[in-house]
Amino acid sequence: MDLIKEKFLKLGAEYAPGQEGRQKTNEIDVPFEKIPGRPVDFSHGDVDAFQPIPGSLDAFVEGVHLGGKQAYTEYRGGMDIREKLAEKLADFTNTSIDPDQHVILTPGTQGALFLAMGSTVARGDKVAIVEPDYFANRKLVEFFDGEVVPVQLDYYKTDTSAGLELTQLEDAFQSGVKLFLFSNPNNPTGVIYSWDEIQEIAGLAEQYGATVIVDQLYSRQIFEGRTYTHLCAENRIDRENVITIMGPSKTESLSGYRLGVAFGSAKMINRMEKLQAIVSLRAGGYNQAVLKTWFSEPAGWMEERIKAHQAIRDDLVAKIRAAEGFQVRATEAGSYLFPRIPELGISINEFVKALRLQAGVTVTPGTEFGPQFGDSFRINFSQDHQAAVEAMERVIQVVEAYRNASIK
Amino acid sequence: MDLIKEKFLKLGAEYAPGQEGRQKTNEIDVPFEKIPGRPVDFSHGDVDAFQPIPGSLDAFVEGVHLGGKQAYTEYRGGMDIREKLAEKLADFTNTSIDPDQHVILTPGTQGALFLAMGSTVARGDKVAIVEPDYFANRKLVEFFDGEVVPVQLDYYKTDTSAGLELTQLEDAFQSGVKLFLFSNPNNPTGVIYSWDEIQEIAGLAEQYGATVIVDQLYSRQIFEGRTYTHLCAENRIDRENVITIMGPSKTESLSGYRLGVAFGSAKMINRMEKLQAIVSLRAGGYNQAVLKTWFSEPAGWMEERIKAHQAIRDDLVAKIRAAEGFQVRATEAGSYLFPRIPELGISINEFVKALRLQAGVTVTPGTEFGPQFGDSFRINFSQDHQAAVEAMERVIQVVEAYRNASIK
Repeated sequence: MDLIKEKFLKLGAEYAPGQEGRQKTNEIDVPFEKIPGRPVDFSHGDVDAFQPIPGSLDAFVEGVHLGGKQAYTEYRGGMDIREKLAEKLADFTNTSIDPDQHVILTPGTQGALFLAMGSTVARGDKVAIVEPDYFANRKLVEFFDGEVVPVQLDYYKTDTSAGLELTQLEDAFQSGVKLFLFSNPNNPTGVIYSWDEIQEIAGLAEQYGATVIVDQLYSRQIFEGRTYTHLCAENRIDRENVITIMGPSKTESLSGYRLGVAFGSAKMINRMEKLQAIVSLRAGGYNQAVLKTWFSEPAGWMEERIKAHQAIRDDLVAKIRAAEGFQVRATEAGSYLFPRIPELGISINEFVKALRLQAGVTVTPGTEFGPQFGDSFRINFSQDHQAAVEAMERVIQVVEAYRNASIK
Repeated sequence: MDLIKEKFLKLGAEYAPGQEGRQKTNEIDVPFEKIPGRPVDFSHGDVDAFQPIPGSLDAFVEGVHLGGKQAYTEYRGGMDIREKLAEKLADFTNTSIDPDQHVILTPGTQGALFLAMGSTVARGDKVAIVEPDYFANRKLVEFFDGEVVPVQLDYYKTDTSAGLELTQLEDAFQSGVKLFLFSNPNNPTGVIYSWDEIQEIAGLAEQYGATVIVDQLYSRQIFEGRTYTHLCAENRIDRENVITIMGPSKTESLSGYRLGVAFGSAKMINRMEKLQAIVSLRAGGYNQAVLKTWFSEPAGWMEERIKAHQAIRDDLVAKIRAAEGFQVRATEAGSYLFPRIPELGISINEFVKALRLQAGVTVTPGTEFGPQFGDSFRINFSQDHQAAVEAMERVIQVVEAYRNASIK
């Protein structure tokens, strides 16, 4: 059992978003007064501040009333749901999607990501992942005994592209990488890959015969002045080598229903279904019915949501940029910001714990997104606008307090 | 990518229960007239015939109205839900269960099983599994690159115990097996392990320092005259080496909500949570609220349900035993029967396809439960009583028709 012990030592979840309640914060002796204010949990969006798509609960209840037919769908999801969804996703991405062959419904986008990785990564396989990127990407490669080949995202270099180091990506492919996994918009920075970058990624993957998994979880929430390029619609890459992942957990606030979707390569979708048969059978049967509301939101609902988030972003970015020693690139899509903070007398994990105890503010340490990001943290600013701004003020105060102090 | 290709060639799902819709039945040229009758899908229970626990949808809706707190629980599930559940499960199994350390909520019992196996099986580990047993057990061992060490269940030998070949189990432990996985009541036969068998299993596992995972999915639906022994309550084994899996998908008809629970070893629950963080994050947040109804059914509800199932069992067993060349052991718990049929001119997979096309009856081939069970099939008789009896009559007719015939 030594191999398994080793595996789980690497697979930490203590600092993962949402797990803060399991941290042993009583070990920390905070040397400052508590800063009062309404607590804000920036580790995920606040679905009370930004409510689920109207009608989502009604769709669930209708699913329950359909009975056995909806409870026991095929493992890849009910055909009627897949049909409607394939049409909407094809419209959204400007591709064609066969609901029978190209789509699988999963328990959340996390479910889709796990199945996609489990269907492509075997022991010893080299997998290119971006740094920084979603915290689970690295863990998934390690869980499946693959080898992580990091590719840097120099997101402070420019604001006209994401900043991917394309020569590093080509080096990775040359070294034998057959799978590239990345999120677009990037999690945690909220930057969008440019048309040029997507062309290059598609071209390189095709040249080296690699598969690409793109996590597009936040690709509907694009801020003013930005454009988005879907890799799956590019002609430079064989579509049988691309899996795209999406879901209604973020912008649409449906996380409590655990719904995701993967679409693309028929061969990979087929494998993912085989794997789902032993992982969780299917996305919750009744839950699947909620997908009927996705991409069918009331007129103006999405525009309003984007506008509200852009306004929060603007206020937070202004606050952060005004703080001494802070740096941040403005979010282009989605609800994440990934500020860099000045050097402190404590580690980022200690800072995160102290911030929660002392100021009632929960953030995710940068090291969850790559080992070198000990000077950064991520926030999901899908929160009550005023509460978010006030919480950021407290963050800045706590940073200031720890610039020259340490804790026991 | 050859390793992964190999892995997925082994990981078939075509004949798995519920996937019959994806079989290419049009390839089969059925040589007989169709037999009319109301279609019955014996591959799983009929939640329209046996409805979910009263109040389950209300509990879900209440969960939705709790908002963010219920949508974003810890990965192991909401603490308030775990507290109530730990108390009920401790009562049921006559053990003590710490809700903070010993319980994880999962997307279905399949989810619990996957996490438990993923937390114990590494490459090259030998794992003892029973033949016949739940179809996913073997697949899980293979997916995690373990080695299956089969232990036979001679379920026709006796009707006072399950019939486990205990010397084979000891041989398995002696050969280096460190994990034993079994379902009790056994899936697919519906037989219960006796008190003696559970004592022996506990004693052997302890002697060889092995971990035991017990799938007790159907352990609440015990038929008249039978008693049930919980391995987790035995003193002969260190409880830190036992994980018990349950869920409300079967007897309680809540499968559409995808809910399961694993309880036991704190170390293993901790690993399972780390794994869940990259598999699907958590059981659907709102769905978790439905667990409030579990073990809190209206007075008499469970007794009524058991009685109704026992009556169906009695009628089906009588029909099967009256048919020439059939053999069956009567279900002692749960809703499965695993009849053996006489030799046919076609394979069991062809028989299953023909049965569906010709008689509108879906069953699961015995080979899903062990390669040697090509002469058996499983049914879940949680169905409309009359429809189930009529469907069994058609099964017997189709068997008769194929005893000396073949299909192209």
